[in-house]
Amino acid sequence: MENNKITGAELIAKALKKQGVDVVFGIVGIPVIEVAEAIISEGIKFVGFRNEQSLSYAASAYGYLTGRPGVCLVVSGPGVVHALAGVFNAQVNCWPLLLIGGSIDTYQEGMGAFQELDQVTLCRANSKYSTRPPSISHIPNVLDKAIRISIYGRPGPVYVDLPANYIQGSINLDSITLPDRAPDPPKSLADPIQINNAIELIVNSKRPLVIIGKGAAYSRAENEIKELIEKTNIPFLPTPMGKGVLPDHHHLCVSAARSKALANADVILLLGARLNWILHFGLSPKFNKDVKIIQIDILPEEHYNNSRIIIALLGHLPLVISQLIDSLPKSFKYSLTSDYFISLNQKINDNIKITNEKFHDDHIPMSYYRAFYEIKQKLPKNDIVLVSEGANTMDIARSIFDIQEPRCRLDAGTMATMGVGMGYAIADSKTFNETPLNNLPSTALLPEVRYELIADATGGKGYFVKTPQELSNALDESLKDDDRCIVINVMIQPAGKKKLEFSWMETTKPKL
Amino acid sequence: MENNKITGAELIAKALKKQGVDVVFGIVGIPVIEVAEAIISEGIKFVGFRNEQSLSYAASAYGYLTGRPGVCLVVSGPGVVHALAGVFNAQVNCWPLLLIGGSIDTYQEGMGAFQELDQVTLCRANSKYSTRPPSISHIPNVLDKAIRISIYGRPGPVYVDLPANYIQGSINLDSITLPDRAPDPPKSLADPIQINNAIELIVNSKRPLVIIGKGAAYSRAENEIKELIEKTNIPFLPTPMGKGVLPDHHHLCVSAARSKALANADVILLLGARLNWILHFGLSPKFNKDVKIIQIDILPEEHYNNSRIIIALLGHLPLVISQLIDSLPKSFKYSLTSDYFISLNQKINDNIKITNEKFHDDHIPMSYYRAFYEIKQKLPKNDIVLVSEGANTMDIARSIFDIQEPRCRLDAGTMATMGVGMGYAIADSKTFNETPLNNLPSTALLPEVRYELIADATGGKGYFVKTPQELSNALDESLKDDDRCIVINVMIQPAGKKKLEFSWMETTKPKL
Amino acid sequence: MENNKITGAELIAKALKKQGVDVVFGIVGIPVIEVAEAIISEGIKFVGFRNEQSLSYAASAYGYLTGRPGVCLVVSGPGVVHALAGVFNAQVNCWPLLLIGGSIDTYQEGMGAFQELDQVTLCRANSKYSTRPPSISHIPNVLDKAIRISIYGRPGPVYVDLPANYIQGSINLDSITLPDRAPDPPKSLADPIQINNAIELIVNSKRPLVIIGKGAAYSRAENEIKELIEKTNIPFLPTPMGKGVLPDHHHLCVSAARSKALANADVILLLGARLNWILHFGLSPKFNKDVKIIQIDILPEEHYNNSRIIIALLGHLPLVISQLIDSLPKSFKYSLTSDYFISLNQKINDNIKITNEKFHDDHIPMSYYRAFYEIKQKLPKNDIVLVSEGANTMDIARSIFDIQEPRCRLDAGTMATMGVGMGYAIADSKTFNETPLNNLPSTALLPEVRYELIADATGGKGYFVKTPQELSNALDESLKDDDRCIVINVMIQPAGKKKLEFSWMETTKPKL
Amino acid sequence: MENNKITGAELIAKALKKQGVDVVFGIVGIPVIEVAEAIISEGIKFVGFRNEQSLSYAASAYGYLTGRPGVCLVVSGPGVVHALAGVFNAQVNCWPLLLIGGSIDTYQEGMGAFQELDQVTLCRANSKYSTRPPSISHIPNVLDKAIRISIYGRPGPVYVDLPANYIQGSINLDSITLPDRAPDPPKSLADPIQINNAIELIVNSKRPLVIIGKGAAYSRAENEIKELIEKTNIPFLPTPMGKGVLPDHHHLCVSAARSKALANADVILLLGARLNWILHFGLSPKFNKDVKIIQIDILPEEHYNNSRIIIALLGHLPLVISQLIDSLPKSFKYSLTSDYFISLNQKINDNIKITNEKFHDDHIPMSYYRAFYEIKQKLPKNDIVLVSEGANTMDIARSIFDIQEPRCRLDAGTMATMGVGMGYAIADSKTFNETPLNNLPSTALLPEVRYELIADATGGKGYFVKTPQELSNALDESLKDDDRCIVINVMIQPAGKKKLEFSWMETTKPKL
Repeated sequence: MENNKITGAELIAKALKKQGVDVVFGIVGIPVIEVAEAIISEGIKFVGFRNEQSLSYAASAYGYLTGRPGVCLVVSGPGVVHALAGVFNAQVNCWPLLLIGGSIDTYQEGMGAFQELDQVTLCRANSKYSTRPPSISHIPNVLDKAIRISIYGRPGPVYVDLPANYIQGSINLDSITLPDRAPDPPKSLADPIQINNAIELIVNSKRPLVIIGKGAAYSRAENEIKELIEKTNIPFLPTPMGKGVLPDHHHLCVSAARSKALANADVILLLGARLNWILHFGLSPKFNKDVKIIQIDILPEEHYNNSRIIIALLGHLPLVISQLIDSLPKSFKYSLTSDYFISLNQKINDNIKITNEKFHDDHIPMSYYRAFYEIKQKLPKNDIVLVSEGANTMDIARSIFDIQEPRCRLDAGTMATMGVGMGYAIADSKTFNETPLNNLPSTALLPEVRYELIADATGGKGYFVKTPQELSNALDESLKDDDRCIVINVMIQPAGKKKLEFSWMETTKPKL
Repeated sequence: MENNKITGAELIAKALKKQGVDVVFGIVGIPVIEVAEAIISEGIKFVGFRNEQSLSYAASAYGYLTGRPGVCLVVSGPGVVHALAGVFNAQVNCWPLLLIGGSIDTYQEGMGAFQELDQVTLCRANSKYSTRPPSISHIPNVLDKAIRISIYGRPGPVYVDLPANYIQGSINLDSITLPDRAPDPPKSLADPIQINNAIELIVNSKRPLVIIGKGAAYSRAENEIKELIEKTNIPFLPTPMGKGVLPDHHHLCVSAARSKALANADVILLLGARLNWILHFGLSPKFNKDVKIIQIDILPEEHYNNSRIIIALLGHLPLVISQLIDSLPKSFKYSLTSDYFISLNQKINDNIKITNEKFHDDHIPMSYYRAFYEIKQKLPKNDIVLVSEGANTMDIARSIFDIQEPRCRLDAGTMATMGVGMGYAIADSKTFNETPLNNLPSTALLPEVRYELIADATGGKGYFVKTPQELSNALDESLKDDDRCIVINVMIQPAGKKKLEFSWMETTKPKL
Repeated sequence: MENNKITGAELIAKALKKQGVDVVFGIVGIPVIEVAEAIISEGIKFVGFRNEQSLSYAASAYGYLTGRPGVCLVVSGPGVVHALAGVFNAQVNCWPLLLIGGSIDTYQEGMGAFQELDQVTLCRANSKYSTRPPSISHIPNVLDKAIRISIYGRPGPVYVDLPANYIQGSINLDSITLPDRAPDPPKSLADPIQINNAIELIVNSKRPLVIIGKGAAYSRAENEIKELIEKTNIPFLPTPMGKGVLPDHHHLCVSAARSKALANADVILLLGARLNWILHFGLSPKFNKDVKIIQIDILPEEHYNNSRIIIALLGHLPLVISQLIDSLPKSFKYSLTSDYFISLNQKINDNIKITNEKFHDDHIPMSYYRAFYEIKQKLPKNDIVLVSEGANTMDIARSIFDIQEPRCRLDAGTMATMGVGMGYAIADSKTFNETPLNNLPSTALLPEVRYELIADATGGKGYFVKTPQELSNALDESLKDDDRCIVINVMIQPAGKKKLEFSWMETTKPKL
Repeated sequence: MENNKITGAELIAKALKKQGVDVVFGIVGIPVIEVAEAIISEGIKFVGFRNEQSLSYAASAYGYLTGRPGVCLVVSGPGVVHALAGVFNAQVNCWPLLLIGGSIDTYQEGMGAFQELDQVTLCRANSKYSTRPPSISHIPNVLDKAIRISIYGRPGPVYVDLPANYIQGSINLDSITLPDRAPDPPKSLADPIQINNAIELIVNSKRPLVIIGKGAAYSRAENEIKELIEKTNIPFLPTPMGKGVLPDHHHLCVSAARSKALANADVILLLGARLNWILHFGLSPKFNKDVKIIQIDILPEEHYNNSRIIIALLGHLPLVISQLIDSLPKSFKYSLTSDYFISLNQKINDNIKITNEKFHDDHIPMSYYRAFYEIKQKLPKNDIVLVSEGANTMDIARSIFDIQEPRCRLDAGTMATMGVGMGYAIADSKTFNETPLNNLPSTALLPEVRYELIADATGGKGYFVKTPQELSNALDESLKDDDRCIVINVMIQPAGKKKLEFSWMETTKPKL
């Protein structure tokens, strides 16, 4: 029995492993270094970052791409505060994210402890679940519940708080049953009566349109949507992150006539998309004021928001689309020679012509179009994930770079968050599945990061020094330089063990 | 009358100007670009950043250095979320900070609008004041109140929310009275009875110690503290940011015997410092278990926390110290030949010897000590602000670099926040007072920031391209490069006016 | 056009009427008197209370009984604070409730206005939706959304804030489209694969049990459950408020052998009940540790909580039960001669014998059992709603009073809230449907409430006086009475118009 | 050592006793019965209530009257929710209040436990301090800190959460040091420079006025204010609860000319009162638009709110007034023959005449005035506390009943809370100081409360029954009575020990 004593850190790692977590995004420090080391020991990939903001964006995208929560491990106080960026991003985009934050020893609460912050309350208002396990032994069940809640119903972020004394504490592993991997979310189908009502609307529509949202990508509805579209011939329009669920080059894709399609459709089938700013709230003048909207969404409370839709189909998107397909009259197929479809195609061709002209504008500096054209020509057609941010960059790139596969385009998203790009690029799950990561220590840096080049990049001056003499010289030169920002990158010997950090932190429990 | 119509943005700028605000730290975007432009037009310096996290740290330090709130201007949603970092940092460090966030049109609330976030609630729990003015005309009074609250009592962060329709709205300036600059905080003195009790403790102490906190620096008590120390000969110990209130080289400074001083003092006079983790909660074994603490603090609720102090002196630090000086018996002077003082000096000398040996260690890579020694020799003695972060860097540097003037050392602070360095360096108010800033547009970047060098810095490969051909070549090379991260920095023509951003954002008010 | 000007108060009343609201529970005062009067004018029944606590409990139960939110109208500040009781009660019991609170003029926010309170934030954390409409014209849409959210998905409370200046403001009715009655909630079915898995478990169970929760009553699943139970012969156990979904006298009801049934069942079908304290968290020793639980619930995040269930069926309870019925093998019927069923019946008979003995215990004071027996004999069998609270009262009464119809038993509920009884008794919707209420003014009291009798009830002394002489005499006697609490009920002339209230309240907008 | 084991409940009681708490207001139930019993055993008076709302109002007033927090003890869930009423009331009125709430076992958190509620978060946003001690041993220090925070600076409510497993747990008393009674709040004086500025304003004023607020009563400034008023001859005006700090019959009291005084004063000395709705925000037209206000307040952030005051005096009211007195020119005395003073007196006389006429109006039903006149004649002049609520009652009574001593008038207060009267009447501290309470068990009721009389009071019909036959008869009669509400009060034998409550609550810790 006694032989099976493990630390809290090890228990956390084992619980995550049992949950099927294979990647953790983290920045270590007191008190989570031991957690990171235990995670690495369990064979989970640990991806170290230098700023929790970017880390949390990476993890939020990872959740979107994989359907299981991206896991972040951060220190207490500033670590959790910086990671809130990803928590909000995940909340607004409806992506699963599990933030795990270290926290102070429970007995120091309210004393002004090292990086003390009431993180549970902070995260509660902005996540689906935020808690501190009541004891070490509750950690596995709490992580299980957190993961379930992050992916059940509308996905979102969750937070679990891990006090230092839990992490450093110990427990007999035999006394604990690690819960199995949280079951995939329960699925539901829509009410058959409403399915029939929807079919009737679709069949009688003169100018139907399908809008494919990010929720369709998340729920992996690509096969069902393809079948629906191709059986019915209804033109479709993806939202920015709905692109690729069906290929952009599909002959029924009307992205290049977006405004016209929205303004003219008389029946819209809305698949996993909210009627928010990205869709002009579903309101006129951007939408036809008499449009009849059929909304499929997993969240009951989402239905009828902003624009009074006509039919609410509640359920798991792939299953509900299958219900629609099964209920379609065999004979039904929308005519590709309708005025509506022809006029959309005409508009598409006009727009392509205009873009093509811009592609060949030789003005220097290049226009966005010219630059994108070069890139477009070289870019592999498949097996890439395109990440794009910046208002103009995103706006213009969206119409130029075709996406052919689901979940292969990431951008600033529902929250229009600028600064996500780097994290999202790292989050691309393919990297993790295909590339073995070296199991570096969780604190490891590349040995010679050339920070001083940043000064050069921004009009300053950088020095890279290894010896006292080089340092001395660099200082002499720097101090003569009145106009520029100077960065001196000094190679020194690491101070060694983490316990040197904050040498004055009291490790013996103080006497009250 | 009609001639005096101004926009909400202009009203904000005028109100800030009238408040004496001379610097605004900001990142623009929808809907605050107009505010930034109006601010620049009013002759306020606008310091643009690229990440609100760093920006908010800069502004928090600016508040500490100047005694008036650093002002941040950020966009809604992610802008405010990122800036929370500075809000928490200011809250924990007790520094004034005014965060101004753009927000959505009031009539779009709850609709999923562009970067919609309930920022007022988000900031409320973690600041002294968080509000949205009830109308455009209330903006000047709300800003006045926000500034007052940020500096009255214990300082801290405040938040003011500015909906897009206020910013873009208009008002007749004649209908508004802009409040004058918010008066400096009301000051108070301590209870004279307690002053006498404190004097009696001090006079009868065998091993007295003064601890100088960050609050002493903030309240500009340097002259009074100098007089007190030099009249009484009591040795003193600064906290990390209390350094420089009196010069570190002062003969009564016992920093180099910190642990010994804390463990032996029988009476401690605590000046503007909390008994938090930095001071081991005032508890044994780090403090003498029978120590009698006299605490001077501006916040009534701070007194007696963690360690039961003996005397609570409530009031404005410089005034209360003056009360103490006035009540000192003329004859009193602590003996520099006491065993206590001699043993502290012995310890100091021992420690200096050890450090000196480390200074001359010629091992390569250099130790922290060796590198710091080079820097210490070159560094100007005066007129610099030292910013330091990173656990070991901070810990070791603190004992090596003497600080001679108040408010000239900034570090990770009470929250132990890593990542503050760059912002703090920019915040140094001297820069703003002495250097005229070019009034660039609020969106301006340096013309040719060489972002691609960051790839080079971290083991990747960067390209800087200006023509389609260069871009094409760079892409060809990149796509052959399987192992490295590639950054291609493409010079393009700016897209122009902001209204191109998010071209599909509906600017006409949708019909409900 | 101008002829169609109505006040905000009238707009609120019309919007509620259009939503199909036919009862409002309220306590009037500044600023909601006008709202109550407009509601009465629209033909909505207004039920006046004297304490918002009881009022809010009444409305929460009304929501449970009718499936549409009970509507509360209260004043700002203390009115909303008192009504929080019902908000929490509705939240924990998952009942729809719409709380409408008056609030201060928007332009007085933060000034310490009359009964000023940030009610939106207060209610947000503890409800599904809490908001203030952005303008008068948004009120109807906000009420519509609030009602939808209160009944969609898992039901719960919502809050809408109505500033005084909206209530007193005016708007052209022609400029507004009142949304139709919020559609009933969208319904969903469970995943057919899981339905089959559930059937297999049920069919192979040796000791099956159905648990009928309050959610089954709320979702009006009585017909489907009856069919399921009677087709399968599976014994069932109602939770306290699940009683009556099937009649307690049903031959398959095993309430009287509750503990035995729970401890022995090997497969449990859980219908609209949570595994919370009322069901011992679904854990051993109260539950068989190897029990396999099939849970039907409308909230995805509820599944697998506390006890790891085996099969999660997500959907609308009546539809999901119908799916189960449709999938049952025709031949399947659970044997009433199984050991399990016989032993449950034996236990039931034993328990009935014990209770019968207690019924005839003639000890004075009576026991709970003896008193309940008298009541039980007299009580009509049908067409009553039994409300019960008080720990022992509830506990003992639950096993004695059979409930024969759904939603005819109300008790302290999931929150174990004592004090709900009076409100719940009033809320019984039958009262409202069958009894026409006099349309008294919203402030009306019974003319001669004999408050002084309360003194008599609790050992004090009451006086009812109408003339100065009677008052004088009562005072003389009272002042001689040293030992008792005295209540003198003085009939006076009402002061008249409400505008006399707080005569010093400034009605002209003060000049900032 | 072992002999000194005590329960958590006993530790709480001992800690409260050591803090000098002598009265606890409470309603018991699971899990706080043991706490109440331990409190009674320690010799603390326990005042039982039947609704936490009234209880919490009583405790809030007790804090105002005594200067130490009223202590409330309530059960978890609904108990705390109901007691929020007093928390808000204390917050808005700035009165100290300590709410102690039972809560669930820490290990059941998040499971849907009996009356589970996150009370710490709920109370945090609306109090000065809200916490759960990290362990049993921390309880005494947390209670000490809670009490300090409730009375230091601006007073207010605090909340301490006590999980059932702490209450039922045990600890060795020898391992704990119970902190001494929390020291009285530290006091401060105003800045002498501002004192001089204030004196100059006062001396040069033509129409000075002193406003005496509730804060003057709370801070027991009556002697200092009397000296100031009588030395200077400045007329004064009390706020409703400021009445009695100086006697209403004082010749310098201008209450009966309130509006005239406010509108004409050119310099106002504001003593412990906020410029909120009760004082018309200090704005014109109620105040002279050029009035110069000198504000003395203990809270720095209160100064300059709403109306830009001229001089902010920060400090403890009695000490600051003494500073003013000490700085007054010896020769200064305001002339009682000034036009201003004469016109105020004229107005007072006019108003008295009008009131007198109303006193003798013989109309039946009586007017408020007539009824109050009768009461006024009989009421003892001294040694009473007048509690008044109801809008008209309060408004009219305020001008009729003179208050001669400080803290002897309680009304609906800053929050205008109706329903406080009963609790306030009980809270009158004199009762507790002079009357020994019987130490009944904490659950005790009067033996024969005649609840059925309430039916009689409100037009229904009540029965009081003791035997089965009486009960049977009453039921027969009741069921024939279709029109009236019936209450049958049945005397039964108490069920006995509390452990019968919720018999199915699992007392063995369930196995996860």
